[in-house]
Amino acid sequence: MIRDLILKNRSYRRFYQEVSIEFATLRELVDLARLSASAGNVQPLKYILSCNPKKNALIFPHLAWAGYLKDWPGPCEGERPSAYIIIVGDTEIGQSFGCDHGIVAQSILLGATEKGLGGCMIGSIQREGLREVLKIPERYKILLVLALGRPRETVVIETVGPNGDIKYWRDSEGVHHVPKRPLNDIILDES
Amino acid sequence: MIRDLILKNRSYRRFYQEVSIEFATLRELVDLARLSASAGNVQPLKYILSCNPKKNALIFPHLAWAGYLKDWPGPCEGERPSAYIIIVGDTEIGQSFGCDHGIVAQSILLGATEKGLGGCMIGSIQREGLREVLKIPERYKILLVLALGRPRETVVIETVGPNGDIKYWRDSEGVHHVPKRPLNDIILDES
Repeated sequence: MIRDLILKNRSYRRFYQEVSIEFATLRELVDLARLSASAGNVQPLKYILSCNPKKNALIFPHLAWAGYLKDWPGPCEGERPSAYIIIVGDTEIGQSFGCDHGIVAQSILLGATEKGLGGCMIGSIQREGLREVLKIPERYKILLVLALGRPRETVVIETVGPNGDIKYWRDSEGVHHVPKRPLNDIILDES
Repeated sequence: MIRDLILKNRSYRRFYQEVSIEFATLRELVDLARLSASAGNVQPLKYILSCNPKKNALIFPHLAWAGYLKDWPGPCEGERPSAYIIIVGDTEIGQSFGCDHGIVAQSILLGATEKGLGGCMIGSIQREGLREVLKIPERYKILLVLALGRPRETVVIETVGPNGDIKYWRDSEGVHHVPKRPLNDIILDES
């Protein structure tokens, strides 16, 4: 059931870093992206893959993790992602990428979840630094970084309370709590 | 397998209009959206549902269909969507919606596909006209319209040829052909 997969597909930020991910796996995930919808079927997105520790270490410092957890600088060595898929927009194909990167990111993460992996869509990126270390040509606009690995944390969904606070938080056991708005609050009109 | 669902989830534009869709079904689909990722967990998206013929008829004229099929003005009466989910951004919650609408649109359409339905993400919308007929307050930015129904056409995926043409086309049998770029063309770097 797709609902079970969507429920299991939480944003994970701590991983069993020693569990490696093969290139073949990343290619299978990008193929799910390839087969997903694209506005006007233009398909302007391209993908940079990383699953070796050296390249992963170049990428990691350019990502911001869990903005609401002020005391947590991100996953420590040993709990970092085993792989990344960087989604870029090819400006020689299109100038606007609409929400294509959201569509494909969801396909990729659902595919990863099915494989017992998990990850996080990261939009808070030091783009120029990342471009420099990976020598990404200016032609490509950096849109999203997907961090991937075998999840090493528990994430639970809760309901946003009356104060409307949507900030996720981590309890003393390290469990990550994510408040989601109730269904009736997000459906405006079903007349 | 998520791959099978993604393959089955094509953009459909002709439907068995007489096959109705219940509100409860649309609510289940929006719940999949609700449980999907949102940048900073802000969850600024809201949803307007329609599954009655009168409201559907108000929405339909404000949508542009299949831009590359110049001789086809869109589905005729009898082949139109049975339902719509309009995704809007609540500007009292956020000003920027990133690619959140792409993430949720993919969740919704995968959920619809699993239910034997199908649809199309439509971004080419006469927004002011749609706002007016549905009396959508200015507070809500219209992002995407998802047209839904039981598909009444065959869609096949092909590989983009050497000329790079990505325009979908319809053959004399009415089969809709969609060229997708090959995997090796969209993976930039897997060193």
